[in-house]
Amino acid sequence: MSQAFQHLIDIESLSDDQLQSLVEQASLIKARPELHDGALRGRILVNLFFEASTRTRFSFEIAARRLGMHVVNFSAASSSVSKGETLLDSFRTVQAMGPDVIVFRHPDVGSAGRLAIEAGDGTHVINAGDGSRAHPSQAVLDMVTLAEHFDDLSRISVLIAGDLRNSRVTHSDVAAMRKLGVGEIRLASPPQLRPDEEMARGARVFDDFEEALADVDVVMTLRVQKERLRDSDIPEPLSYHRNWGLNPDRLALARPGCLVMHPGPMNRGVEISSEVADGPQSVILEQVTNGVYARMAILLAMLGK
Amino acid sequence: MSQAFQHLIDIESLSDDQLQSLVEQASLIKARPELHDGALRGRILVNLFFEASTRTRFSFEIAARRLGMHVVNFSAASSSVSKGETLLDSFRTVQAMGPDVIVFRHPDVGSAGRLAIEAGDGTHVINAGDGSRAHPSQAVLDMVTLAEHFDDLSRISVLIAGDLRNSRVTHSDVAAMRKLGVGEIRLASPPQLRPDEEMARGARVFDDFEEALADVDVVMTLRVQKERLRDSDIPEPLSYHRNWGLNPDRLALARPGCLVMHPGPMNRGVEISSEVADGPQSVILEQVTNGVYARMAILLAMLGK
Amino acid sequence: MSQAFQHLIDIESLSDDQLQSLVEQASLIKARPELHDGALRGRILVNLFFEASTRTRFSFEIAARRLGMHVVNFSAASSSVSKGETLLDSFRTVQAMGPDVIVFRHPDVGSAGRLAIEAGDGTHVINAGDGSRAHPSQAVLDMVTLAEHFDDLSRISVLIAGDLRNSRVTHSDVAAMRKLGVGEIRLASPPQLRPDEEMARGARVFDDFEEALADVDVVMTLRVQKERLRDSDIPEPLSYHRNWGLNPDRLALARPGCLVMHPGPMNRGVEISSEVADGPQSVILEQVTNGVYARMAILLAMLGK
Repeated sequence: MSQAFQHLIDIESLSDDQLQSLVEQASLIKARPELHDGALRGRILVNLFFEASTRTRFSFEIAARRLGMHVVNFSAASSSVSKGETLLDSFRTVQAMGPDVIVFRHPDVGSAGRLAIEAGDGTHVINAGDGSRAHPSQAVLDMVTLAEHFDDLSRISVLIAGDLRNSRVTHSDVAAMRKLGVGEIRLASPPQLRPDEEMARGARVFDDFEEALADVDVVMTLRVQKERLRDSDIPEPLSYHRNWGLNPDRLALARPGCLVMHPGPMNRGVEISSEVADGPQSVILEQVTNGVYARMAILLAMLGK
Repeated sequence: MSQAFQHLIDIESLSDDQLQSLVEQASLIKARPELHDGALRGRILVNLFFEASTRTRFSFEIAARRLGMHVVNFSAASSSVSKGETLLDSFRTVQAMGPDVIVFRHPDVGSAGRLAIEAGDGTHVINAGDGSRAHPSQAVLDMVTLAEHFDDLSRISVLIAGDLRNSRVTHSDVAAMRKLGVGEIRLASPPQLRPDEEMARGARVFDDFEEALADVDVVMTLRVQKERLRDSDIPEPLSYHRNWGLNPDRLALARPGCLVMHPGPMNRGVEISSEVADGPQSVILEQVTNGVYARMAILLAMLGK
Repeated sequence: MSQAFQHLIDIESLSDDQLQSLVEQASLIKARPELHDGALRGRILVNLFFEASTRTRFSFEIAARRLGMHVVNFSAASSSVSKGETLLDSFRTVQAMGPDVIVFRHPDVGSAGRLAIEAGDGTHVINAGDGSRAHPSQAVLDMVTLAEHFDDLSRISVLIAGDLRNSRVTHSDVAAMRKLGVGEIRLASPPQLRPDEEMARGARVFDDFEEALADVDVVMTLRVQKERLRDSDIPEPLSYHRNWGLNPDRLALARPGCLVMHPGPMNRGVEISSEVADGPQSVILEQVTNGVYARMAILLAMLGK
């Protein structure tokens, strides 16, 4: 059993042991998922999503249902928000109905943490993305994926490339890789999408994709998040692909067998070519599968006895 | 066990005993909810909502799931309505699939009652709001909240203030308070939002908020329902707050310890100030919590053996 | 038990025995639905709908829940599609989360079949409508309805009338009626909504509704699917009703007691008059009821042991 925690707002708030334990627990669940069928029967999870999402909402929903939980979905479109209610009041209202877990996604940086402070003892908050800040359950699934492929993370070099500036996934992945002692963390991006200082701490930062790719064991590419960029900062897709698209020639610069990851959704022909996305080194769909097990591990750590 | 009834369209159709029994049953469920886990296992509830809603749909969904029911949600946005189907045909189609309960919200006054007449023996209809007419499950939860705080409702004075003209909550609350013998019912509103004669029957009607507040035991404020008003009748928010906002000074006019209620969603700084909404006299979140138990009681009364 | 099959993309891919078995199984389930409660407990069905739908999504959801399955709903509006993801990547992502069945609706002809080819061994795909092409579960429920009313399908004459050109229901119904040996299949439509050659194979095609109605045992009328027509091909509603509306006078041309069917949603006063839709010969709501049992039979045939 993973060590208990009340909320999951960011990776930084987990101890090294708690993160390590979640990663191990997810792999154990993956090996024998039937052992956990109905383990949280009757508990209630609310997906409180103020941003469009398919994969994250689905993944939590499937994880929760496999554990026997009830799932209630909220999407901002059909909500009291349009009647002038504040976010905090929406949260308190949902909480007053007695759910065990509120999975929360919102475009505002720090919003999940602010709500967790307001949460009562019986309510657990999971940050499923707060703007460009954090997406900790994604980091757990990415660590599960790394741990499945490498026995000793201290000996590998991992590159994350693309729109780092707006990437909550990168923020959380970098924090998780530091905690698990990944040997080398590299970050590469065009100048207007560069990481901030906090994200870059302890990482090697590159302006050139090909230079960054040299000899890495893992490369993760990222979608350009147009919805978080000023128009003038959005790169033109073809020129982005020319300079930052992961194609077979570029992948050949990495170590042989280098894993290809992507948190999805992918824009084929922009940050990644189809040959690479569908190629033998791609573990993109493994990441999705691991997401369900990572979220089961998180829910069990929060709610299990 | 509450006394059985087929549909819940308005409070007026319940006997005094049925309403009293629902209120008592909801409190019993609240005290020991685990006794009712799965009591309606396998039964099907459909949320058929033609108006935006978070709290009511969520509350019915959580109540039903705690009882073990299946819940299927319909929202008008993605429906056959856009293909020219009539409301009655949509209802009959859903009914033909065999749900036990259809929870129905629609902007047209009287629509829930018209559908209940069409319903077959095996289908129960709950009105979750038909325009400005009725919202009986909200009234049940409000009565649960009153009953928790006052042993003898015949000795209290309750004020409802704000947009009464469009308030299905007020309509149902007034009917419920009459049935339970609440000592005094007061209604206060600006001139253009005055209650109709039916709503005002047996109540003291005020044009001045402060006069109405004198010595009341409970005050409930209401959001201005802009979506149901002509533009010329919508009060300007700041001036509304000046004259009709419940702030600490006004609350001091009521009896000491006067309870503050609001059916939500709140517009802070308009009909209520944050000091009052979040203050020690506020039972607004208790109302939300009681909503789940009130709806469990309603479902058990309809479907339980 | 019906004979197992992996996917349900179109009626043509079923053997005669498989279709016959599904129809019989649906009737058996209808007679004693409680025997199958929870038969597929813990299995996961995803409704992956890229077109608006109420009845089909509801029907699959209710069928699946009665069998004890978990149901997760996707609608295109709030999805990664808006972030540039391809349909195939959306499908693969959902599949990677491990559902047992993906029920898929999409406006593109052939899309369900293309996805089924991509599906892994553990995933079953059901086509819930791919543009104007096929809607096989609707055909199964229509055959259940015919089989309930006629002992010997080889002796009946069935007319489908209206917008045949865009009708996936007709496509699948004609294929099913051929397989089950329906005596005579008639198709009637205005010139701009005529069936293609494939659909018309083995059917008698009419340009005149009244001529087509003579002595038929069953008539099914169809909504004009404006969303699939060029503006210039959309008939004006009143003139359509004058020439192609099924009213009592026209129904009198058919055999006495002729059944009236409609796949819904209906446009009353256009392709059908209310007297006929609500009259004693209408089995339109029986079709809806049978839809749930047909889909339970389909799911059991795919997933049952």
